[in-house]
Amino acid sequence: MEEVLRRQIEKIVTLTDEEFRFVLTHFTARTVKKHQYVVQAGDPAPNDHFVVKGLLKSFYTDDLGKTHILQFAMEDWWISDPQAYHNKVNATLHIDCLEDTQLFFISIDNREKLCVELQKMEYFFMKKTTAGYIALQRRILSLMSQKAEERFNQFIQLYPTLLQRVPKALIASYLGISRETLSRMSAH
Amino acid sequence: MEEVLRRQIEKIVTLTDEEFRFVLTHFTARTVKKHQYVVQAGDPAPNDHFVVKGLLKSFYTDDLGKTHILQFAMEDWWISDPQAYHNKVNATLHIDCLEDTQLFFISIDNREKLCVELQKMEYFFMKKTTAGYIALQRRILSLMSQKAEERFNQFIQLYPTLLQRVPKALIASYLGISRETLSRMSAH
Repeated sequence: MEEVLRRQIEKIVTLTDEEFRFVLTHFTARTVKKHQYVVQAGDPAPNDHFVVKGLLKSFYTDDLGKTHILQFAMEDWWISDPQAYHNKVNATLHIDCLEDTQLFFISIDNREKLCVELQKMEYFFMKKTTAGYIALQRRILSLMSQKAEERFNQFIQLYPTLLQRVPKALIASYLGISRETLSRMSAH
Repeated sequence: MEEVLRRQIEKIVTLTDEEFRFVLTHFTARTVKKHQYVVQAGDPAPNDHFVVKGLLKSFYTDDLGKTHILQFAMEDWWISDPQAYHNKVNATLHIDCLEDTQLFFISIDNREKLCVELQKMEYFFMKKTTAGYIALQRRILSLMSQKAEERFNQFIQLYPTLLQRVPKALIASYLGISRETLSRMSAH
């Protein structure tokens, strides 16, 4: 399980065995069952989660009780409520498991400590945050400029695995399209 | 003009006079006229821009020729095509000036050099990127879950100055609502 985290970090920076053991002391391993929550809106959410195995989603429930899926996270992905995590405020998002999940989490305090202690980890997190920023911007453009069908086709291209593992109703919510529209499209 | 950049950086990290002079050698000052472009889709876009005075917008033109406003940037804000900037690929966005503008730009190569030379600047850029990430996520939630009127009211609350300086048609495009809807709402 540790090796998965090491490979993730070493995609961006190289670590000696000793450095990786040191990095690891800042993380905590956790197993979470399907349907269990790791973040609940209204509670503190001081951890960022790296998925070793399994699948989670983050979502927002609006004032009318409607849920909006913000993100999925499967193997090798990170998931948190970024506003709650970085600004140390209570969560506005929920995060729960769509499958039994193994993960490593790191608290914001440990992350800040680690970045000071080992500069290459600051570089690592900077690269991850930047990649996340670019992905969010692409998503905004997609929400603004693409029709439902184009958004769905782009989703299939980007995340073919998710199409197999995530219930269609949740994909429809993520894409901001109706369940009926999605069923019609995925029948082709 | 230098002092504006220094205040921006010192909101997050403290610099000695010598450090700031060193930071400054990585930036270039530039004056740009209203309607002029600083980034054009299809061209390389190796610079991130810090606005000292003035106002810019970034936008995407879709296959049908329709434009979608992604971002405005006025005093104290940063603007780039982040994908082109960080991944060193050609731009997909345009960035032009809505007013005569004074800015500092920093190339991605200079930024990377600066972050290695002066670790607190890596921390500074990390904080800025994280804040940008959180803002984009809030925007996605807003696009997914809020009605036109709620989006407009949130925009007024967050950016009262922009409402005075930006033509209504551009605000409508930014919010993803029709010009007519916006005119109706802003008449109240």
